Amino acid sequence: MAIGASLAHTLARLEAMLGDRVTANSAVREQHGRDEGYQPGQPPDAVVFPNSTEEVSAIAKLCSAAGLPMIPYGVGTSLEGQVMAPAGGLCIDLSRMREILQVNPRDLDCSAQAGVTRRQLNTHLRDQGLFFTVDPGADATLGGMAATRASGTNAVRYGTMRENVLGLTVVLADGRVIRTGGRARKSAAGYDLTHLFIGSEGTLGIITELTVRLYGRLEAVSSAVCRFATLDGAVDTAIETIQLGIPVARIELLDEVQIDAVNRYSRLSNPVAPTLFLEFHGTTSAVREQAEQVGSIAAEYGGGDFQWSQDEQQRQTLWRARHDAAYACKALRPGGEIWPTDVCVPISRLAECIRETRKDIDASKLVAPIVGHVGDGNFHVIMVLDPGDRGEMDRAHAFNDRLIARALDLGGSCTGEHGVGLGKRDYLLAEHGGAVEVMAGIKRALDPRNLMNPGKIFLA
Amino acid sequence: MAIGASLAHTLARLEAMLGDRVTANSAVREQHGRDEGYQPGQPPDAVVFPNSTEEVSAIAKLCSAAGLPMIPYGVGTSLEGQVMAPAGGLCIDLSRMREILQVNPRDLDCSAQAGVTRRQLNTHLRDQGLFFTVDPGADATLGGMAATRASGTNAVRYGTMRENVLGLTVVLADGRVIRTGGRARKSAAGYDLTHLFIGSEGTLGIITELTVRLYGRLEAVSSAVCRFATLDGAVDTAIETIQLGIPVARIELLDEVQIDAVNRYSRLSNPVAPTLFLEFHGTTSAVREQAEQVGSIAAEYGGGDFQWSQDEQQRQTLWRARHDAAYACKALRPGGEIWPTDVCVPISRLAECIRETRKDIDASKLVAPIVGHVGDGNFHVIMVLDPGDRGEMDRAHAFNDRLIARALDLGGSCTGEHGVGLGKRDYLLAEHGGAVEVMAGIKRALDPRNLMNPGKIFLA
Repeated sequence: MAIGASLAHTLARLEAMLGDRVTANSAVREQHGRDEGYQPGQPPDAVVFPNSTEEVSAIAKLCSAAGLPMIPYGVGTSLEGQVMAPAGGLCIDLSRMREILQVNPRDLDCSAQAGVTRRQLNTHLRDQGLFFTVDPGADATLGGMAATRASGTNAVRYGTMRENVLGLTVVLADGRVIRTGGRARKSAAGYDLTHLFIGSEGTLGIITELTVRLYGRLEAVSSAVCRFATLDGAVDTAIETIQLGIPVARIELLDEVQIDAVNRYSRLSNPVAPTLFLEFHGTTSAVREQAEQVGSIAAEYGGGDFQWSQDEQQRQTLWRARHDAAYACKALRPGGEIWPTDVCVPISRLAECIRETRKDIDASKLVAPIVGHVGDGNFHVIMVLDPGDRGEMDRAHAFNDRLIARALDLGGSCTGEHGVGLGKRDYLLAEHGGAVEVMAGIKRALDPRNLMNPGKIFLA
Repeated sequence: MAIGASLAHTLARLEAMLGDRVTANSAVREQHGRDEGYQPGQPPDAVVFPNSTEEVSAIAKLCSAAGLPMIPYGVGTSLEGQVMAPAGGLCIDLSRMREILQVNPRDLDCSAQAGVTRRQLNTHLRDQGLFFTVDPGADATLGGMAATRASGTNAVRYGTMRENVLGLTVVLADGRVIRTGGRARKSAAGYDLTHLFIGSEGTLGIITELTVRLYGRLEAVSSAVCRFATLDGAVDTAIETIQLGIPVARIELLDEVQIDAVNRYSRLSNPVAPTLFLEFHGTTSAVREQAEQVGSIAAEYGGGDFQWSQDEQQRQTLWRARHDAAYACKALRPGGEIWPTDVCVPISRLAECIRETRKDIDASKLVAPIVGHVGDGNFHVIMVLDPGDRGEMDRAHAFNDRLIARALDLGGSCTGEHGVGLGKRDYLLAEHGGAVEVMAGIKRALDPRNLMNPGKIFLA
């Protein structure tokens, strides 16, 4: 059966099952063929909107029978082309699977469908005095966040999705449904499939439900902002804070280019200097003690006035510049497109990596603020580009190559939290060597016909 | 070629390579065919003592060519038969690979060969003000601890091997050497092979080197001991402590049977009552605050005098009963054998699980103290048995079946930290259902001829 005929046949069967929750409408296909990154869109052949694990399983069985690629989709906030359909196929949009299934306050965990977003979950949890910590910039779905091993500003204290997912329900390529992990905090019972699916970007199966860790809201939260004479001073303050084991909840760097962008975007007048944004969680006395410790480290590294506050309203104001960072970049250059790239290095090498990168950006004549989850050794370079300017795009590609080579040379990773998708496949071998063939072997074992999000993570 | 001829041929080649570091001496084989658990010994055909990853790789190539099973061995402290050789083959004893390769104090990590033991590492680190947190009872090797996803008393605060291994060097069945993970604290680059090998018990490859997380020694450490009128009171205190997010470093339960055993063993006179042992890490004010918080919770649940101390000597004395627990069990019954089993449940179900288990032990007429890493919902039942008493052994098996069924019914795991080995294979399907077939598929992909520690984790 030719692909076209096979597709038509499968769509007819999907329609019989899902009614108007399957569509080949071109606007819907276009919308599902792009993400928030810089890659040109590649729309799927059709889009389905299942409501349950059982429906996803039935869809996978039909796709498997037809040899049709399956691309899981949350809300499309990936950055490296993870949701695109280079080989066509069916986009499985899980955003209608928005049910929070169970909250267990006594065990500090909850189970939810994959389409629940992080903000939806936290709104639901607020009255119970609980919160879910992982916070990538976008209001992503939990399923998408697990699939890309997402992270965010709280990771330095609470970990990434890697540390915060206890178990998964996954639909495999042939439609089988499995459950991984469980609600016990520890287990030594068999292979760790949960961590295998976290970060697999839909290439091994479709995550349909998750059990995640929660934390109780703390007695006290305080925020601080501190500006530095030099980028090195800010980074060294972050490094020493981590090395001393001070349990900061957030420690974020905005370089002077980013602060300038935020000022323009939000009509603020922050001094244009490398700036650290911090947050402390704990008891009232613990947050005071932590803030004082970091304040005295900052003073040693040329930090200016260390402003800190426990007042919720003031905290929001202090953090405003950080939260607006991504939008502000876009506003730096009207009509410009954003290419956000990220690397992660051991923290002892962070100052060196950021310093060289800033020089490289300037020498490459790129507009590109640096924003970093510096407590983890992770930072983003947000290039703001004119996609029509071929020379500039070439310089951006060459810069990205050098950035990643630099991070790998320093013992780091080609991506701290954005994942591989289409955009970072070229670098995987340089980072992992022969282990990539083991990854590919696992992919073949679980998805022998390469139907699950084909073209992602692996080259060819 | 018959197995005997093949073995002789391989041994000759191993001897040419390793000289006297290969042996078929029966005493050495016997010693390598048993662990610290209750399973009858099953010796390998021969034992080799490699010094390096390269030698392990060369050994694996020879075994692979000869179709000879490979059983990795550290210091033999596993508890579920992980080191035994039910299919014969070559035991690869890594205990001579004891080199600490690199300590990075600024990044709080270090790399070491797999045969380094946890105490050796901590002795090495002491002068640098660093420590490695994972502490199973035995002075196990890092490689063995990673392979069994080991844990211990510090896991409630610092995590298990799952959270503390950053990267691995692994020799695969065909002798290929791969490196997984890396030194960056976060990465979203490809499948998480590190977590796949952690807990794989030598069935997917041989761990030869590890990079692990370290922590800086803290300003203050304080310990506390508190006795309770009832087992429920002790367990409920632990549960509430965790639910309130108090960052205790250790919270261990010894039931009255265990306290009695320790008293007899060490000629102590601790009141025979369910007892919590706690430890607090942090700044001087933080540990005081934590101890006060837990003290007031304990008082609500019928806890007696809450003794706490920051004095190192006094701390050692307070903890003595906990550290002697395993030896004390053995002394409960001269000539008796120990069968330590462990389960883990969501903490909200822990009191119920322990209460029912205590009743079941008594009704089964078994001598079996309960010792728990209760902050994780994990506890051990240490049966002290006369292996010659068939009726008692039958009761022990039936009790173990019920214990595990109870833990699974409560949403838990059949093993929190001892692993599957030979002893818990029967329960894997009940815990993981269809996911076991996915685990087996990965096993086949990485070790198609089933040469890596065959017979472990999977039935048949």
